[in-house]
Amino acid sequence: MSFLGYSAPDSQSEKEWESKFRDGISPKNIRDNMQRLTARPHHVGSPYDKDNAEWILGRFKEWGYDAHIESFEVLFPTPKQRLLELLEPTRFTAQLHEPALAIDPTSKQTEEQLPTYNAYSVDGDVTGPLIYVNFGNREDYEQLDRMGISVKGAIVIARYGGGWRGVKPKVAAEHGAVGCIIYSDPKEDGYHEGDDYPDGGWRPRFGVQRGSVMDTDYPGDPLTPGVGATSDAKRLEVKDAKTITKIPVLPISYSDAGPLLAALKGRVAPEGWRGGLPIPYHIGPGPAKVHLKVESNWDLQPIYDVIAILHGSNDQQWVLRGNHHDAWVNGAEDPISGQAALLEEARMLGELHHQGWTPKRTIVYCAWDGEEPGLLGSVEWVETHINELKQRAVAYINSDSNSRGFLYPGGTQDLQTFVSGVARDVEDPETKMSVFERSHLHAIAAAKDTEERKDLRKRNDLIVHALGDGSDYTAFQDFAGVSSLNLGFGGEDDGTQYHSVYDDFYWYTHFVDTDFAYGHALAQMSGSAVMRLADAEIIPLDYAPQAEAIGKYEGELEKMLKDKQEESTERNLELQEGVFRAINDPRRPTVPPPVEAVPPYMNFAPMKNAIEALKKSSDRYSKALSIWQAAGTPRESKQKIEVLNQDLLKVSRLFLNENGLPERPWFKNQVYAPGAYTGYGAKPIAAVREYMDEKRWRDADAQVPQVAQVIQNAATGVDKCADDLEALIAAKR
Amino acid sequence: MSFLGYSAPDSQSEKEWESKFRDGISPKNIRDNMQRLTARPHHVGSPYDKDNAEWILGRFKEWGYDAHIESFEVLFPTPKQRLLELLEPTRFTAQLHEPALAIDPTSKQTEEQLPTYNAYSVDGDVTGPLIYVNFGNREDYEQLDRMGISVKGAIVIARYGGGWRGVKPKVAAEHGAVGCIIYSDPKEDGYHEGDDYPDGGWRPRFGVQRGSVMDTDYPGDPLTPGVGATSDAKRLEVKDAKTITKIPVLPISYSDAGPLLAALKGRVAPEGWRGGLPIPYHIGPGPAKVHLKVESNWDLQPIYDVIAILHGSNDQQWVLRGNHHDAWVNGAEDPISGQAALLEEARMLGELHHQGWTPKRTIVYCAWDGEEPGLLGSVEWVETHINELKQRAVAYINSDSNSRGFLYPGGTQDLQTFVSGVARDVEDPETKMSVFERSHLHAIAAAKDTEERKDLRKRNDLIVHALGDGSDYTAFQDFAGVSSLNLGFGGEDDGTQYHSVYDDFYWYTHFVDTDFAYGHALAQMSGSAVMRLADAEIIPLDYAPQAEAIGKYEGELEKMLKDKQEESTERNLELQEGVFRAINDPRRPTVPPPVEAVPPYMNFAPMKNAIEALKKSSDRYSKALSIWQAAGTPRESKQKIEVLNQDLLKVSRLFLNENGLPERPWFKNQVYAPGAYTGYGAKPIAAVREYMDEKRWRDADAQVPQVAQVIQNAATGVDKCADDLEALIAAKR
Repeated sequence: MSFLGYSAPDSQSEKEWESKFRDGISPKNIRDNMQRLTARPHHVGSPYDKDNAEWILGRFKEWGYDAHIESFEVLFPTPKQRLLELLEPTRFTAQLHEPALAIDPTSKQTEEQLPTYNAYSVDGDVTGPLIYVNFGNREDYEQLDRMGISVKGAIVIARYGGGWRGVKPKVAAEHGAVGCIIYSDPKEDGYHEGDDYPDGGWRPRFGVQRGSVMDTDYPGDPLTPGVGATSDAKRLEVKDAKTITKIPVLPISYSDAGPLLAALKGRVAPEGWRGGLPIPYHIGPGPAKVHLKVESNWDLQPIYDVIAILHGSNDQQWVLRGNHHDAWVNGAEDPISGQAALLEEARMLGELHHQGWTPKRTIVYCAWDGEEPGLLGSVEWVETHINELKQRAVAYINSDSNSRGFLYPGGTQDLQTFVSGVARDVEDPETKMSVFERSHLHAIAAAKDTEERKDLRKRNDLIVHALGDGSDYTAFQDFAGVSSLNLGFGGEDDGTQYHSVYDDFYWYTHFVDTDFAYGHALAQMSGSAVMRLADAEIIPLDYAPQAEAIGKYEGELEKMLKDKQEESTERNLELQEGVFRAINDPRRPTVPPPVEAVPPYMNFAPMKNAIEALKKSSDRYSKALSIWQAAGTPRESKQKIEVLNQDLLKVSRLFLNENGLPERPWFKNQVYAPGAYTGYGAKPIAAVREYMDEKRWRDADAQVPQVAQVIQNAATGVDKCADDLEALIAAKR
Repeated sequence: MSFLGYSAPDSQSEKEWESKFRDGISPKNIRDNMQRLTARPHHVGSPYDKDNAEWILGRFKEWGYDAHIESFEVLFPTPKQRLLELLEPTRFTAQLHEPALAIDPTSKQTEEQLPTYNAYSVDGDVTGPLIYVNFGNREDYEQLDRMGISVKGAIVIARYGGGWRGVKPKVAAEHGAVGCIIYSDPKEDGYHEGDDYPDGGWRPRFGVQRGSVMDTDYPGDPLTPGVGATSDAKRLEVKDAKTITKIPVLPISYSDAGPLLAALKGRVAPEGWRGGLPIPYHIGPGPAKVHLKVESNWDLQPIYDVIAILHGSNDQQWVLRGNHHDAWVNGAEDPISGQAALLEEARMLGELHHQGWTPKRTIVYCAWDGEEPGLLGSVEWVETHINELKQRAVAYINSDSNSRGFLYPGGTQDLQTFVSGVARDVEDPETKMSVFERSHLHAIAAAKDTEERKDLRKRNDLIVHALGDGSDYTAFQDFAGVSSLNLGFGGEDDGTQYHSVYDDFYWYTHFVDTDFAYGHALAQMSGSAVMRLADAEIIPLDYAPQAEAIGKYEGELEKMLKDKQEESTERNLELQEGVFRAINDPRRPTVPPPVEAVPPYMNFAPMKNAIEALKKSSDRYSKALSIWQAAGTPRESKQKIEVLNQDLLKVSRLFLNENGLPERPWFKNQVYAPGAYTGYGAKPIAAVREYMDEKRWRDADAQVPQVAQVIQNAATGVDKCADDLEALIAAKR
């Protein structure tokens, strides 16, 4: 069978070039790339960050790319002062430092290492009682309310995990806390999971997870929302930047957290809140009192995006491929495991070009800077080039950290059929079955019930899950409406040193993808995808899986409403029956939840009608495409193909509404978006879903028509493509 | 409304006597009882065990009971030698001792304390590699098989929990292990749950859980299965006693287990296997090698059951009430929290008798000895008096450990309506609602889904759960076919020192039912039940809830078959698809499960027909009873009532089959039984269910008709009672 969007002869030629490409990928080169790029700390503003960008630029040029560095000036706070003390009932001062390990060479580069901190924490000097808040999510505060515990005026300590770190200080501040400490509990990524570093791969007792806590109103430079942070851009004052936290935050190790948690008394934490430290987890407050001081240098720093172009026959259509190069420290897994593979794939495409291959469309490789602090490099670049991108971008393919195991494709499902096809042609290094087959069978094994297994067994594609804002695809998908994919392998971890000094070459080559077999697979997978997208006669988009996915998201909204209605009704009944009085234990009293109005019914009909329309047009387009694939295009219809491709390229833009989400106008995409309270996690159809989360039922209901309109627009767009393609087929007959 | 089995005037008089009874119960007396009985260690064979029995006897006599001590001679092994050493990779000798605590007076009685051990472990001296087996259940060994790990020739270490302790050495031996260590992990009952003793109520680092590991073929004295262990009984040789373990077993603290577990390498244990120690849990084998030596004195010891009779007008019908008095050490919670309440309730019944109340039926109070080693006191007594019991026993009401919270009634559901009625008349000390209401509302709060909540809301009774063999009801229910109840409060624990020296008066009065409010409630609840059973005109049995429960058990069997069929089919399909090959991680390889024949369909029809018959006869009897309650009995029909009562008394005996369960002939009851591999836990309809567990589908199918016959017999018995009662009602008209 020929590739999606390829007639039979083109497909054959593409197969041959791709085979050549995959055969040329070398694990050794990927290893060498990693060793070079991780040799010194390379965070934003560091000498080696710039050095890496220049080295990458050099490589691209060497391989024949039209490459340059595009620079921006962004707000990037770095630590000036960090202090955490237990004042009562005993005194203890936190170490706030990851010590060097004799066996690990780069762990000793203390001069260049960025101290342990959370970027974009507001400056602050606070003292207060300590309260343990589990993961510090909204549900945790609901439980605290039930226990009659308030964090007003307190410093909260939350463990990492259970959602994105930036949500913790945000929700804490909303509940009146004055400071927030985040620690890595051994239950999540320490000895509870396996041997710790350097005996094994898991986070050691002094290991700290750095990370950004920038709020989710908009990603990118806090001072230039919506526009590129060029040197002459109009900037907000730091004090007016909405995405800086409201209270000071500091991340610590469990070695530092242990004495703090052990000093807490008061209620014992509920079972699900307890971590892996050998202590009873108390919530407090009392008697522990802590002092937290955080102060940053609020400087502008330059960032260096490397942009490398391999011109295609058609320079008006771009296939983009990116991975960031900046790290918190040495960053072997995050991000160099992905960046090293990207460079190897780019090298090999250059090599093919040298051998006579020229892509139909232009390929743009992007090595982003400043991802860690807040997707700075990609967001500022997309904001700067938004008009060109809307005109030209066919798709963006992202990668980031890579380890061993299964392919987890994320993205927009118009690429689901396409990426499934690519995965059939790449070999999984461990099982020697195809990446497709391994991922598909793994999904069957992991399915939650018979229904899901049955569905998976009927499919001949991999399910592409929706993306939120965890990496550099964010601006492409959520702001520019570019069809996106995120590719990477995982699920067979032997540890993590996420955002620590120990995420380095020694650790990665001893505990993760030690022989770069999965770096190899990632380069093969992503590079093949780039080639196949760039060379296709018809841009290989297929809307049926997307219509199916959107239908599923809509179904989730209806189920969520029904569940909430039942939950409220049940809770009110229980209040009336006296259930909460009956289960109250006087030694650990609980406050009954408040009586709550049962959510009203909502009108999902407009959205359902629009989805039906999208399904219909998608099916029509898919059918036409399969007829075309068998028949091919007559020479005289090449222009008609271009009309079709221009129309295809525009469909994903139709999911945008230029007003953005009602509460977060930067996010234009009405189907794909992160949650305001989930961070990385996707919240499809956020305009409706997030008001539902807030129990603002009327506001949620009011959003349905505009979302429906956007989906209807997409349906119309797909119908236009079907018209084009049907005309083409008719012309052929 | 009048009480079940009472006409209106009788009910009124009963109400008044019961009120007097409940008003007379004194928490102070319960506390004093506990202080006296827990003053010294009082295990089987100890001086204070006998002293307690004599003191209890004295009290009963003082209160006007016709009381005596009935003694048996039982095999009760006590430690001669215990040794546990880590030999490799480093040396460590386990302490095997619970140290005295300065604050806790009785913890210092080291002279009289029974050392930490598992009674009925076979003697042995073994050395081998150590392997961690989680809870040591059969499912855990299935997982070990999947990981390619064999315990052949090894010494296994299992954590307490996840089922009865005696299953651990049994299953270990079946898999070829040569020794078994059981330790208390802090996750289950140590610091993970809350502050440990003496700061809080949870098990401290040196705390050890003693306990019997006697096999489940039959309970009671291992040398006299089926008959009373009187001094002249015919006895087996110790070597022929089937209920002694096949391999040596020793319980230890986590303080002793820590160095052993930390010395293990090999595969990291799966997530669900990890406990609360601050180490990675490895399974082994290697490099840890241990030496285990266990040797016991295999002596006969006397046990002292105190039997105290309050003669009723009808000495041919007995209401029995019991709680054991022996403990592993001082035993404040287990069993004196129950025994102390029982004595206070008996005192008050004596007081009422003194005031002019004489029960219609004879009441028999039993303070059992030897429950801890293997229900010795109750089993030997029931075996000795089996014929009288079958003739006379109306019901047996048991209690054991008692703490705070909710009533959890267990037993035979012919008493469900009855016990629900009693619970309506006892006040919960914490909420001041009735015990019934609190328990009912708690069940709603704990329900797993809407369906269950809906069912609970329709009910006006508490659900009585089926009992296995966890306490002294076992011989009554499972061997003699006596309707049984087990009563106690729980669910609001602040700790446990189960089977440790620290389960003593100081601990109990600081961390459990500190003011004996629930001892008070237990005495009120059990004593009211005894009175109401003894005084009823018609024995207050109601078969509709029992028919419903048996119908539910049958439904579980059908569901179990269906689930197993689906599971096998799915697994075979996955094997064929290559799912197990796909999810295999070469760094932690797994063995695919074997292909398995899909279970055949079974014929449940005979059982379903019998259950239908039982439902029909039960409904008929319930209807007649409610008519009678409104109308009462004419004087000239008293004899007819006695015919009915004799028929009622026999119904529960009809659940017996004298051949017993196919693999465990001691257990005669075909509906209520413990599991061979669950220990305490009930396995209703075990004759069928356990063959299904063993995947012996044909054998399971072959058991259906005899179980159906037994249920059919019960239906016929209930029909006879309905005949009696309908005749009585007709006579009245």
